[in-house]
Amino acid sequence: MSRLVKKGSKKAGLPPGVVTYIGKEKTEKVRIKIINYTQTQVTEKIVETVEECLPFKNKQPVTWVDITGIHKTDIIEKMGACFDLHPLVLEDITTTNQRPKLEDFEYYLFIVLQMLAYNEKSKEIEAEQVSLILGNNFVISFQEREGDVFDPVRERIRSGKGKIRMAGSDYLVYSLIDSIVDNYFIILENIGEQIESTEEDLIKNPKRETLNVIHQLKRELIFLRKSVWPLREVISYLQRGDSKLVKKITEVYLKDVYDHTIQIMDTTETFRDLVSGMIDVYLSSISNRMSEVMKVLTMIATIFIPLSFIVGIYGMNFRYMPELYSVWGYPLVMLFMIIIAVFMLRYFRKKNWM
Amino acid sequence: MSRLVKKGSKKAGLPPGVVTYIGKEKTEKVRIKIINYTQTQVTEKIVETVEECLPFKNKQPVTWVDITGIHKTDIIEKMGACFDLHPLVLEDITTTNQRPKLEDFEYYLFIVLQMLAYNEKSKEIEAEQVSLILGNNFVISFQEREGDVFDPVRERIRSGKGKIRMAGSDYLVYSLIDSIVDNYFIILENIGEQIESTEEDLIKNPKRETLNVIHQLKRELIFLRKSVWPLREVISYLQRGDSKLVKKITEVYLKDVYDHTIQIMDTTETFRDLVSGMIDVYLSSISNRMSEVMKVLTMIATIFIPLSFIVGIYGMNFRYMPELYSVWGYPLVMLFMIIIAVFMLRYFRKKNWM
Amino acid sequence: MSRLVKKGSKKAGLPPGVVTYIGKEKTEKVRIKIINYTQTQVTEKIVETVEECLPFKNKQPVTWVDITGIHKTDIIEKMGACFDLHPLVLEDITTTNQRPKLEDFEYYLFIVLQMLAYNEKSKEIEAEQVSLILGNNFVISFQEREGDVFDPVRERIRSGKGKIRMAGSDYLVYSLIDSIVDNYFIILENIGEQIESTEEDLIKNPKRETLNVIHQLKRELIFLRKSVWPLREVISYLQRGDSKLVKKITEVYLKDVYDHTIQIMDTTETFRDLVSGMIDVYLSSISNRMSEVMKVLTMIATIFIPLSFIVGIYGMNFRYMPELYSVWGYPLVMLFMIIIAVFMLRYFRKKNWM
Amino acid sequence: MSRLVKKGSKKAGLPPGVVTYIGKEKTEKVRIKIINYTQTQVTEKIVETVEECLPFKNKQPVTWVDITGIHKTDIIEKMGACFDLHPLVLEDITTTNQRPKLEDFEYYLFIVLQMLAYNEKSKEIEAEQVSLILGNNFVISFQEREGDVFDPVRERIRSGKGKIRMAGSDYLVYSLIDSIVDNYFIILENIGEQIESTEEDLIKNPKRETLNVIHQLKRELIFLRKSVWPLREVISYLQRGDSKLVKKITEVYLKDVYDHTIQIMDTTETFRDLVSGMIDVYLSSISNRMSEVMKVLTMIATIFIPLSFIVGIYGMNFRYMPELYSVWGYPLVMLFMIIIAVFMLRYFRKKNWM
Amino acid sequence: MSRLVKKGSKKAGLPPGVVTYIGKEKTEKVRIKIINYTQTQVTEKIVETVEECLPFKNKQPVTWVDITGIHKTDIIEKMGACFDLHPLVLEDITTTNQRPKLEDFEYYLFIVLQMLAYNEKSKEIEAEQVSLILGNNFVISFQEREGDVFDPVRERIRSGKGKIRMAGSDYLVYSLIDSIVDNYFIILENIGEQIESTEEDLIKNPKRETLNVIHQLKRELIFLRKSVWPLREVISYLQRGDSKLVKKITEVYLKDVYDHTIQIMDTTETFRDLVSGMIDVYLSSISNRMSEVMKVLTMIATIFIPLSFIVGIYGMNFRYMPELYSVWGYPLVMLFMIIIAVFMLRYFRKKNWM
Repeated sequence: MSRLVKKGSKKAGLPPGVVTYIGKEKTEKVRIKIINYTQTQVTEKIVETVEECLPFKNKQPVTWVDITGIHKTDIIEKMGACFDLHPLVLEDITTTNQRPKLEDFEYYLFIVLQMLAYNEKSKEIEAEQVSLILGNNFVISFQEREGDVFDPVRERIRSGKGKIRMAGSDYLVYSLIDSIVDNYFIILENIGEQIESTEEDLIKNPKRETLNVIHQLKRELIFLRKSVWPLREVISYLQRGDSKLVKKITEVYLKDVYDHTIQIMDTTETFRDLVSGMIDVYLSSISNRMSEVMKVLTMIATIFIPLSFIVGIYGMNFRYMPELYSVWGYPLVMLFMIIIAVFMLRYFRKKNWM
Repeated sequence: MSRLVKKGSKKAGLPPGVVTYIGKEKTEKVRIKIINYTQTQVTEKIVETVEECLPFKNKQPVTWVDITGIHKTDIIEKMGACFDLHPLVLEDITTTNQRPKLEDFEYYLFIVLQMLAYNEKSKEIEAEQVSLILGNNFVISFQEREGDVFDPVRERIRSGKGKIRMAGSDYLVYSLIDSIVDNYFIILENIGEQIESTEEDLIKNPKRETLNVIHQLKRELIFLRKSVWPLREVISYLQRGDSKLVKKITEVYLKDVYDHTIQIMDTTETFRDLVSGMIDVYLSSISNRMSEVMKVLTMIATIFIPLSFIVGIYGMNFRYMPELYSVWGYPLVMLFMIIIAVFMLRYFRKKNWM
Repeated sequence: MSRLVKKGSKKAGLPPGVVTYIGKEKTEKVRIKIINYTQTQVTEKIVETVEECLPFKNKQPVTWVDITGIHKTDIIEKMGACFDLHPLVLEDITTTNQRPKLEDFEYYLFIVLQMLAYNEKSKEIEAEQVSLILGNNFVISFQEREGDVFDPVRERIRSGKGKIRMAGSDYLVYSLIDSIVDNYFIILENIGEQIESTEEDLIKNPKRETLNVIHQLKRELIFLRKSVWPLREVISYLQRGDSKLVKKITEVYLKDVYDHTIQIMDTTETFRDLVSGMIDVYLSSISNRMSEVMKVLTMIATIFIPLSFIVGIYGMNFRYMPELYSVWGYPLVMLFMIIIAVFMLRYFRKKNWM
Repeated sequence: MSRLVKKGSKKAGLPPGVVTYIGKEKTEKVRIKIINYTQTQVTEKIVETVEECLPFKNKQPVTWVDITGIHKTDIIEKMGACFDLHPLVLEDITTTNQRPKLEDFEYYLFIVLQMLAYNEKSKEIEAEQVSLILGNNFVISFQEREGDVFDPVRERIRSGKGKIRMAGSDYLVYSLIDSIVDNYFIILENIGEQIESTEEDLIKNPKRETLNVIHQLKRELIFLRKSVWPLREVISYLQRGDSKLVKKITEVYLKDVYDHTIQIMDTTETFRDLVSGMIDVYLSSISNRMSEVMKVLTMIATIFIPLSFIVGIYGMNFRYMPELYSVWGYPLVMLFMIIIAVFMLRYFRKKNWM
Repeated sequence: MSRLVKKGSKKAGLPPGVVTYIGKEKTEKVRIKIINYTQTQVTEKIVETVEECLPFKNKQPVTWVDITGIHKTDIIEKMGACFDLHPLVLEDITTTNQRPKLEDFEYYLFIVLQMLAYNEKSKEIEAEQVSLILGNNFVISFQEREGDVFDPVRERIRSGKGKIRMAGSDYLVYSLIDSIVDNYFIILENIGEQIESTEEDLIKNPKRETLNVIHQLKRELIFLRKSVWPLREVISYLQRGDSKLVKKITEVYLKDVYDHTIQIMDTTETFRDLVSGMIDVYLSSISNRMSEVMKVLTMIATIFIPLSFIVGIYGMNFRYMPELYSVWGYPLVMLFMIIIAVFMLRYFRKKNWM
């Protein structure tokens, strides 16, 4: 549940714009990495103080300030002062578990996204908030933890592969969003595989645990959906070209990410349909099994209860029971009971119970 | 249910604009508190009569008239006369249990909200209506009961922390709405925690009471939703900047509250999904348990009913039953019955019933 | 069902604009009451012929022609000729069970509403069609039956309370609609109370009848909803100010009725949610009870069937059964059976069946 | 099912505009009837060849070409050539089972509708496609079979009742659509009556057949809905006045049909709600009955199984059972068993099982 | 499941515009077929190298480059270079399992569709991605596999039937889309027939397998829907006439395909409704059968358990049981038991259990 609501109570009563970190306590150092690149060269360095970022603020053409760790609020505040960010933006950066959103402050865009990862052990999707600031010639990214999702982008900048070095800061933001969205497909694949294997279980041998797995899947899809739906709005805004910061030439790329988002939403909905179908299958297989159990019980009872009654009759101690003294009594009663049993078995076969 | 429909019958037939209090009878005194503040100083006083508010009507820059208690309709009516409020506004202030709404009367905005509180004992959400009047240089707030939700705002005004003292009446209204909305997160947390603990119960030991808890949760979410959806429209109107009374600089703050509202709605919907999933889990666990009970019954019956039949046979009093007189009769019958029992147990294991 | 579809077959094939009464046959006299009022005086009279209405057609300032009974089609037709109404309007007035709607004929507005009443005996909502014609200086109202919903409006006109005497025909129409909508709240209250009492029944002692009550409630809500949804469109049109016949000053009052309608819709939807939750509770309580019954059966059977088998063994008539001749045979068998019973009871307690 | 998808495979691969009849093979003659009317006179005749229609193409004021039978594709094609119809229109006329639609070809409107009839025997709704061409001074109607739905319209033209003779071709099209829509009400009535009688069955004596009837009803409503929803769009287009072919004066009539369509849709949705509620009632009545059966079984078993055990004890053949030789043994055991039975019956009454 | 999510992991991290084939490995040759046609003549040839397409790029009037096989990425890339296609287009062509979409690059339109085929053996719908490029005077089509869906179009070009040879490239694209959409109807027919036959099974003899078939149907409909919904947007865009590449005269044809798409969507939704109704029928038939089984069990048990108790009484070995020594004992007990049985059978008949 903690994935769904963070301790907002920590914040109630505080004035707006107060930068408070609401996640788990952490002590690691915050890493600030600056990558400045032109068409022909790349400068990459890790800086110790926020002040070192300042010269890059207006430096042409593109600088990427990549910050890992948002638990030191003083660093975030200094960063905000350096780059003239609105206090509410700083507050949002440290308030993890935000709904993905985009805010247009004219001179910069503020984007909040959820980077998702599938934890194989707990079978849960884990979310990490990524905040992006897109300025005219710089991009600032804030991540909660060290991660390798942005590595391919870094690699492409270093090697100059693709058109990233030739394009502006908007293309860099596109590349970062694209790598986050590509990651969603991996999660869908994982869930898809689990759905597949659970469906097989369901047909072969449905168990109590199977239902728990199905509900786990359902919960994960609810969680996924909560992240994906607002994402669409964010990218839709970028791609519509309402902001001057996004160049015409980048729009076709953003349109491409937009299509991916739609596809992710589509697949999420399809998965939801499949999973809710699986619950029906499970429940009806339980019903089925119970009705099978009932049939066996009924057959046994229906055959033997009358027979037991008959043998009971001849177990009575009445003195005047002529059958008891006949030589043929015993075999005739046995025969009679066999006939009854055969008759009943036939009846069951006719009723389709066997 | 009384949370959902108030006794409207009290009002049917009355002409519009008649100020009638429809809540529970009350005798406490109505408290009128006036806070007037400029960038440099704060005046705070509790007044006895409505007339004392009058000088503040046009006093610059910002006055907050904070009224606690709406059961004295004469005070509300005098207030309306003082500040030129429309009769329907006065009617709405005293008609508690309104749907949150905003009405634009050009010279002032009238806002109705529901302040929610989670009652730990009854596990119910309790609502209190808060009405706000936003004028050019004043804000009037009406509350049903004494409460401490607005305390942090008062504190910020007194101490001059944040930008509240530098801003206008629109920022004050924003601050009040913000503190109400922040409170919703605490309710979501409470519900979230209950969902979590109920889910554990559901997996470990589902009981009849668990279902009652789930339905209680469902009812609370229906109630919460009813308050949150219209709230969105209210804040959306404020934030769109259609009213002259809301300054451009405040809009970004209202956008922030708006985002919070969206997040609350989102979480409410997610909770509804989770809770309706829990009902499925509960029902299927009942089915499961019943089918387990049935299996035990069937096993016992299936093993012992035929065996009882056999012992019944040898309890018959026929004179001519040769088995009865054989020395091996008794042990052979016992052996035969053990063989049958073993065979059946194997059959059950194969059928996966054990 | 007859509440849902009226005998349209009576009308199929007729040309449009033919005035046919499709309700139950009636013989009562149609009552035409004329109320003409200015700021200072009120004239009220019951007229015998339609022609007597004619002088009021252009008389200033406001005339209310209040017609009770729509089964005499000739009167309706004469009325239409007098006030230049479109034939389709006349047809709609007599065709009861219409969907609430508003039609703008420029010189007059035609409004169809459903007045609802809760029949305590049959626990059913009963509908009566009310048609209103709003002209520049007159209002014509058509009701099916004598009723007292409009009494407070008449009283207000007579006494001059409120602003009704100072306002125009649009305010009169607003007052009539307002009294109809206020009546809906009473119905919601009734349903709300029934939901409440049914919920208690459901928790204490769910019976077959409870389900019937729930389904009755569900049906009433379907019926209510069918009347309320189109009502919103009607009042929304009036309140938007698209018609010259509605003055600016009345719009704020119509906005107020509009808010009430939204609140009614909201509550109706909430009730639907609650009622469908109750069906779940009922079904699961049936399941629960059945599983409880099954547990008792299983316990009894599981304990006594094996014990009966044992006593059956010693009821066999084999000659060579050494146990039978031992002095300790009987007490040992009894002891053995007690041990088995105790063991089983423990097993049930462990399995949580007791 | 054949009502839902026609054999489209017959058409796959054909170029567009090829006129193919896809319904059942037929050999009846196609009847072409021409009705030309002015305000003062009516000419009516049945023509043998399509060419005879030609003179009426431009003849003032209104001609209605009424064609029954669409299985002779050559006649349709000649008709198309005569009146300059687009090949796709001809294709659509013969492709029955189309979704209701309207296409505006500027000089004529092409309208496809589904005429519905309730087959009392099969309890199924049967659909027949009706295509209408509205030209400036002519209307062409295509029907699959001879039918009497248009008879009242013909009758009105002949007799000059209503305003049909005074109006143009658009009013004629309105009259035809109106008679089709009026027919829908008859179907709703039929379904409504069946719902009513099924509901009574459901309360008095729910059977397996009842469920089949409910599902039949559900299927019919799915089918009805499929015809009604697109109908709304068609009439909405006509009534909006986007086409020059529809005169202003006719719009109020079309608005009337539009309202009817909305009412039909409304009622269809209400019926769907009712029918899905009936399924719940059925299922819960099955559960109920089963739980009642279970109670009886449990009572019998719970009373007699322990008693049978007791009598089994005294049927044992142990030599040393002192009770057996006591004079009071038999009556005391009998008394003991009666006490047990009474105790158990009380327990059941307390548990509310009797 | 593999139909729903393709291995996107192969692509994560790659820069955009990299052409990678993600389908199954293939070794067949890619076939490039060029069909160039004017009103009077047709040239058709299979070329070996992409370069041979170049002369047709600007050749009037229409050239269709028909490519089968997309697994050789170098060919796709050369094609892109020849016809100035955007790298993202090339990437999309080879990334099969895309959501149907249309992108407007001003000088050409890029359309992605899913061609569906119903696999009779696996009862599954199989999808193949078809990409179309519509230029001013050329159309390029990319298919995954050899197929015969486009054969009728080829045939029409060769024979000059229909208006295809007289029209432009937009009409050719229309024809290709039309043949794909026509194919959807065949799939609907197949599913429709299966629904029909399954419904019969359901009424006559519902089995566990029936449920599996229903769920298979449900899954196929989820899959179908996923392809059809976006298709509507694609064709809607074409038909709206927003692109200069689509001529006015073709729009009416595209409107026709659009109507077909709507009809397919409609039918898909109807099928979903029907299938979900079938699940209800299945579940209730299981309930029914179980309750029937229970009735038999209860009747047997209820009749014989008390009778067995009675015979048990007279099997007791008490010395002092006067009944045992009476001559009438045995026949009277037998009579008594018959009376009890008859009484019980009557009770069951009254309770409607027989």
